[in-house]
Amino acid sequence: MYYFDKRLQYPVKVDAPDPVFARMLQQAIGGVEGEIRVCMQYFFQAWGARGPTTKYRDMLLNTATEEIGHIEMLATAVAMNLEKAPTALQEEGAADGVVGAVMGGGSARHTIEGMLHRHILSTGMAAFPANSEGVPFDMSHIYASGNLAADMYCNVAAETTGRTLAVRLFNAAHDAGMRDMLHFMIARDTMHQEQWLAVIEELGGHEGALPIPNSFPQSAEHAQFNYNFFVTSADGSVPEAARWNSGPSVDGRGEFSTFVNKPMGEEPVLGPARPDSGAQAEQIADAPI
Amino acid sequence: MYYFDKRLQYPVKVDAPDPVFARMLQQAIGGVEGEIRVCMQYFFQAWGARGPTTKYRDMLLNTATEEIGHIEMLATAVAMNLEKAPTALQEEGAADGVVGAVMGGGSARHTIEGMLHRHILSTGMAAFPANSEGVPFDMSHIYASGNLAADMYCNVAAETTGRTLAVRLFNAAHDAGMRDMLHFMIARDTMHQEQWLAVIEELGGHEGALPIPNSFPQSAEHAQFNYNFFVTSADGSVPEAARWNSGPSVDGRGEFSTFVNKPMGEEPVLGPARPDSGAQAEQIADAPI
Amino acid sequence: MYYFDKRLQYPVKVDAPDPVFARMLQQAIGGVEGEIRVCMQYFFQAWGARGPTTKYRDMLLNTATEEIGHIEMLATAVAMNLEKAPTALQEEGAADGVVGAVMGGGSARHTIEGMLHRHILSTGMAAFPANSEGVPFDMSHIYASGNLAADMYCNVAAETTGRTLAVRLFNAAHDAGMRDMLHFMIARDTMHQEQWLAVIEELGGHEGALPIPNSFPQSAEHAQFNYNFFVTSADGSVPEAARWNSGPSVDGRGEFSTFVNKPMGEEPVLGPARPDSGAQAEQIADAPI
Amino acid sequence: MYYFDKRLQYPVKVDAPDPVFARMLQQAIGGVEGEIRVCMQYFFQAWGARGPTTKYRDMLLNTATEEIGHIEMLATAVAMNLEKAPTALQEEGAADGVVGAVMGGGSARHTIEGMLHRHILSTGMAAFPANSEGVPFDMSHIYASGNLAADMYCNVAAETTGRTLAVRLFNAAHDAGMRDMLHFMIARDTMHQEQWLAVIEELGGHEGALPIPNSFPQSAEHAQFNYNFFVTSADGSVPEAARWNSGPSVDGRGEFSTFVNKPMGEEPVLGPARPDSGAQAEQIADAPI
Amino acid sequence: MYYFDKRLQYPVKVDAPDPVFARMLQQAIGGVEGEIRVCMQYFFQAWGARGPTTKYRDMLLNTATEEIGHIEMLATAVAMNLEKAPTALQEEGAADGVVGAVMGGGSARHTIEGMLHRHILSTGMAAFPANSEGVPFDMSHIYASGNLAADMYCNVAAETTGRTLAVRLFNAAHDAGMRDMLHFMIARDTMHQEQWLAVIEELGGHEGALPIPNSFPQSAEHAQFNYNFFVTSADGSVPEAARWNSGPSVDGRGEFSTFVNKPMGEEPVLGPARPDSGAQAEQIADAPI
Amino acid sequence: MYYFDKRLQYPVKVDAPDPVFARMLQQAIGGVEGEIRVCMQYFFQAWGARGPTTKYRDMLLNTATEEIGHIEMLATAVAMNLEKAPTALQEEGAADGVVGAVMGGGSARHTIEGMLHRHILSTGMAAFPANSEGVPFDMSHIYASGNLAADMYCNVAAETTGRTLAVRLFNAAHDAGMRDMLHFMIARDTMHQEQWLAVIEELGGHEGALPIPNSFPQSAEHAQFNYNFFVTSADGSVPEAARWNSGPSVDGRGEFSTFVNKPMGEEPVLGPARPDSGAQAEQIADAPI
Repeated sequence: MYYFDKRLQYPVKVDAPDPVFARMLQQAIGGVEGEIRVCMQYFFQAWGARGPTTKYRDMLLNTATEEIGHIEMLATAVAMNLEKAPTALQEEGAADGVVGAVMGGGSARHTIEGMLHRHILSTGMAAFPANSEGVPFDMSHIYASGNLAADMYCNVAAETTGRTLAVRLFNAAHDAGMRDMLHFMIARDTMHQEQWLAVIEELGGHEGALPIPNSFPQSAEHAQFNYNFFVTSADGSVPEAARWNSGPSVDGRGEFSTFVNKPMGEEPVLGPARPDSGAQAEQIADAPI
Repeated sequence: MYYFDKRLQYPVKVDAPDPVFARMLQQAIGGVEGEIRVCMQYFFQAWGARGPTTKYRDMLLNTATEEIGHIEMLATAVAMNLEKAPTALQEEGAADGVVGAVMGGGSARHTIEGMLHRHILSTGMAAFPANSEGVPFDMSHIYASGNLAADMYCNVAAETTGRTLAVRLFNAAHDAGMRDMLHFMIARDTMHQEQWLAVIEELGGHEGALPIPNSFPQSAEHAQFNYNFFVTSADGSVPEAARWNSGPSVDGRGEFSTFVNKPMGEEPVLGPARPDSGAQAEQIADAPI
Repeated sequence: MYYFDKRLQYPVKVDAPDPVFARMLQQAIGGVEGEIRVCMQYFFQAWGARGPTTKYRDMLLNTATEEIGHIEMLATAVAMNLEKAPTALQEEGAADGVVGAVMGGGSARHTIEGMLHRHILSTGMAAFPANSEGVPFDMSHIYASGNLAADMYCNVAAETTGRTLAVRLFNAAHDAGMRDMLHFMIARDTMHQEQWLAVIEELGGHEGALPIPNSFPQSAEHAQFNYNFFVTSADGSVPEAARWNSGPSVDGRGEFSTFVNKPMGEEPVLGPARPDSGAQAEQIADAPI
Repeated sequence: MYYFDKRLQYPVKVDAPDPVFARMLQQAIGGVEGEIRVCMQYFFQAWGARGPTTKYRDMLLNTATEEIGHIEMLATAVAMNLEKAPTALQEEGAADGVVGAVMGGGSARHTIEGMLHRHILSTGMAAFPANSEGVPFDMSHIYASGNLAADMYCNVAAETTGRTLAVRLFNAAHDAGMRDMLHFMIARDTMHQEQWLAVIEELGGHEGALPIPNSFPQSAEHAQFNYNFFVTSADGSVPEAARWNSGPSVDGRGEFSTFVNKPMGEEPVLGPARPDSGAQAEQIADAPI
Repeated sequence: MYYFDKRLQYPVKVDAPDPVFARMLQQAIGGVEGEIRVCMQYFFQAWGARGPTTKYRDMLLNTATEEIGHIEMLATAVAMNLEKAPTALQEEGAADGVVGAVMGGGSARHTIEGMLHRHILSTGMAAFPANSEGVPFDMSHIYASGNLAADMYCNVAAETTGRTLAVRLFNAAHDAGMRDMLHFMIARDTMHQEQWLAVIEELGGHEGALPIPNSFPQSAEHAQFNYNFFVTSADGSVPEAARWNSGPSVDGRGEFSTFVNKPMGEEPVLGPARPDSGAQAEQIADAPI
Repeated sequence: MYYFDKRLQYPVKVDAPDPVFARMLQQAIGGVEGEIRVCMQYFFQAWGARGPTTKYRDMLLNTATEEIGHIEMLATAVAMNLEKAPTALQEEGAADGVVGAVMGGGSARHTIEGMLHRHILSTGMAAFPANSEGVPFDMSHIYASGNLAADMYCNVAAETTGRTLAVRLFNAAHDAGMRDMLHFMIARDTMHQEQWLAVIEELGGHEGALPIPNSFPQSAEHAQFNYNFFVTSADGSVPEAARWNSGPSVDGRGEFSTFVNKPMGEEPVLGPARPDSGAQAEQIADAPI
């Protein structure tokens, strides 16, 4: 069960509203690297967590719940950046916009052209759950596999792309309030990268957790090909030695080697189409075409 | 540039075709844990790779190219599993199907009810780029961030969920040929988990690569909050000590601690709606409602 | 900012797990009539609420936060219904499944054929944010228009389809625990229908709120056509008198009438294609084809 | 069955073509507030209408058929606004565009930057069924629930957001012809809001139609919680009295009250993962981790 | 502008309702090979048609309008096939269903397992705009390119896959009424294949219309490679002579030949990542890694 | 199985990088007319090809493999066009951008406003599998029907819209390197249009291949309506004679004629809603409303 406090987790202030920066912030709300994704991902991992202890479920609930507050901060920041945005294409407005851009005035520095038009047409100058191109967030990006270690790496992936996005937004921003909010968010992404990797360590690190799932006996996998770097270059040229193609494997259970790939199977032959399958007659007849 | 050999990378044989297993295999083709995803993800990472060396691009091309062959094997396996599938709902056929299921005969063991209907209606008994529920693969799942380390963790995430899926398919399968194909694929997923983690090691491991991106100065992030586990439980109860909330951080640059979350910001106040913004009059007027 | 209690809002118990009912419950999680939708819809309406008072924002936050707990209950119910679900297509299992269905035993009453396969392959027997056909929830369904009254009707629409869904799930369910959970949810949907309509009443009801947006002067709309029922039947047959085509309008500002539709515009003539626009030459040349 | 007249329902004229306004108009074609949505929504409601009378089916067919003509008008308006749009990024063209914008000339006032690029690349300067950001319309937005009253509220929701959009387009427009077309459309949206609410009145209004579906006996719902406003604020603060939390309910069947939410359920405990489910070994073993 | 007649274009009768056939019919409504697609495709082609004559626009309007009636027939057929479908998973019902399937009784021959669950949960036993797996139709499949000849081939593609689907539905059907409806639809698909190819003939056939667009001067394309079949086999093996790799080209403007593909370009070298671009430090530094 | 050569199929050079042209090129990567589509379409057609000969499978593999190289060229071109793109909205940068546009300088001629923001925020200045509006490619566009002739027409459709797109990109481009790359691609699209039509000729041309599928006996289709142009104009006006409504049919098996459409069916009457189906009570009761 859940509760709210109407105050924000961290201050959100915008001195010089910029509707194009509002568009950029949408990526951190509804982009695949954004906050809806991590929030919902951690919740669904928590709600489906199986195992003899509830401590992972608890941990996930703590962080998922924190992330709702991050969506809220960003949605608030979008609305604030849209405070002085244009609503019309009329002559004076548009011209002003461009002139403003050239002059670099403190507000409304960008024109309607670079805005998300749905900020004007669909939301009345507020955030919506879509990315910086206006593409709605799609919940297929919620990775919750039922395997604790796989989920942790999905979370690391989410937070590394998430912090990369936050850094890019920080670099793009010109407003002091926005930069302050983002440096808080970058710090939280640092912690979250650490947190999920720490779980892997608690689960035994590379040696204990890999290969994931570790409940499948490695004796049943094809032992000839589980630590080989497959080369698929047309001329068979083999890359120089690197950490991933020679030496001990990361999990300490094998030795990396290189295998120049070649077909082990045959050309596949499918049966002909059946008469009632809607194929062309030529695909059904036995005679060669 | 690319070339093909019409033979398969590894043998694909199906003794007892099962159209419901054909449905399951679709998850490994067009699911978010599947082969189209890793193939395209590694290609786009390769094609956008920036940096002073081309060795990461080369490595990625080797593996991306291997993955095309995996999609091919799975698509072939789907078509073979559909060889004796029913095409009609007519009385005898359906009855046979159910009886067959009870009897456990060698083929057509499952009825039309459990099949993907698009295997009958749209593809003429062949694979298509969708998952086991018939949902088409959506290319938004191709993660290629422009940050090498973030990409590696995205790849680890893909291969851990990928191997988990392959293991589940192996467990669900009853056909010897399918199990042989899958134990090869499980082995390759093992290697690919290793491979991307090995790149992280080459990039300095946790100490060198974290926090990602490592090109953003940690001095600019909010130092008070970058190694704290935030507690959001309503009663403020703090989890017991664990690897992720006490002791040295994973990257060795900080110390984990616990922070009982409370609002640092204020209740946000947005400006009123503007007269020309399509809001209700009550949102525009100054008088309290 | 947000907090959690690890206990559920209302008890969730499953005596006879049924994996096909787990599939059905997914509609209430990730369907367009489901709980993710209302939760996120109320949050985005709250976070973008403009106007002289914060009371609508507060109300929306109270209810949005309640809805997180509803998603949690349903996700828990899905996982519980999957407790004894089959994982394999092997002979005995599948045969057992069908026999079980005929016998109507207390658990595993349905076979793998009627399940969502992603419950086996992608989530390890847990919920995911998709509907009962496995289609992921798409955030374009979050309606938050920036117009308070329009938003309230969007919420009524969500709760009427939501309660209709809950009733259908109740009718489909056979488990006492599930029926108890659903009768709680049906009650909450009743309240939420009431709640949004009560806001419309507070905003002046039909007379005060319509037409939405009421900030656009009706004097500027085309007064000849704003209370006419347009007839488009090919034979010009006019429906009998009904509440919507005769008598006073709902908002009390007009009188309903019937208008037999006929073209008021002309056949549109677009300019020819330009030479550099990639059209066929015939679309560019001036001579008639 | 259906027929067409090649003339438009209402005149569509564009004096000063503006390719950025063409982009905006796309929202009214393929946006969730747009005309494809209402057209298809009313058709599917009509085609699935059940009940002892065909009068609702007839009414819906009249209006659905009218809406095809609205899509046609908007598609024509898009094509006309694209008549003088740029097709190239070449130096002179682009420079002209920006200069034009500054000068506010009568046509081509906006540059290629603010256009939908698919207007150039995919359609050859014509409309397509996507919104103002180029996101294709997705038919999951067609709400047709099989419950007549729920459908009516879905229609009210569509027309309130639809009229809000039309007003915003009117405010953004600078062309007299476009403003004339839009004031006709705003009038039609007024009527359609009225029309669906009038059906609710004919169905007994709030008292007769609520709670929806009214075919489920309220005696079977959880009577303790069907008229309570649930408070989820962390500090338990209760909102002041308002129409929605005190006094008689809207349907006249209950009394609104306030309930300070607290967990009635327990912490959920899921069973451990099964050995063949692809989980980590730690989730399977009985020993505490 | 448009009109309706409430009677159907062709009779729709269902003697033995089958809810699994209702699912199959959905592919012809909301599948990519279905009727919504052709209806909307022909409308958008008509509404954007440019050129010196309106005859193509007129022809397209005639056929697009016909297609609305086809969607209507199919939606009616879906609702009729759902007349006796189960609504509950309760013990007796499910058991009856399976027994019914074995016995092949005249109605309710299939169980709830093979149904689209949204027919029960979302539509109340009616059609919706989705395919046979429940995936909503996505308007990105409306191909209207602004090039008349390209559009005609898109239409041929739609009608060839459409007739293939209709034939598969005919083969799957067991009800006389459904077979009668489908043989009418198959006939109409025959005509529509013919119709679009006839337009190509009127536009000059292969010689006059190809290559599409014919408004781009072939002198500007790379003349060395416009009639060569490129061989990409790894061993350079060249296919035997066939219509597409030797002899005169289809448009009569060239001669087919075979070219064994080899790289004409170099290994691409992208610039290093910029310091402010969120890349890893290793991608930015100049020193080789 | 597949191999790569790290060199490109054809040279890709960019003298004057333009981030807005990078956006345009995305349409050729991830647009419905683009290269991912044809690549994957030809692969899935190959992998599912049934019939007595493997020559169509081989042909398709040759061309599908070629297309991977086209995606690679375009992705490289996107990255190169983004080399000097802006990363920030800061004052000087933005102002420079606009001034640059006016002056038409050799690089960075367009501002951040016309860019895809995901090029900055998600990819670090590289391509991604989305179109020119940032909408991700959706694999439902891979048409592989199991009918060889239908597939060929789907391929013609893809290549005609593909060449139209390439011509539009050529017209929009200002860089000599980009124009050279595109004139190569235009030539390849010419060949591919030819190639698929040549297969139709080998399959007997219009006479042998039509109607598709040709394995369904035309005697079973509704012979009265398979060569009639249906007129649906409200006034019954019949178009003038044209190739598609008079004279011999394209396949030589019939004679075109014109049929003025009228209802052959009756008004459909669906059964009332069942008591347990979640409808309103009025839809269930027998008495007229």
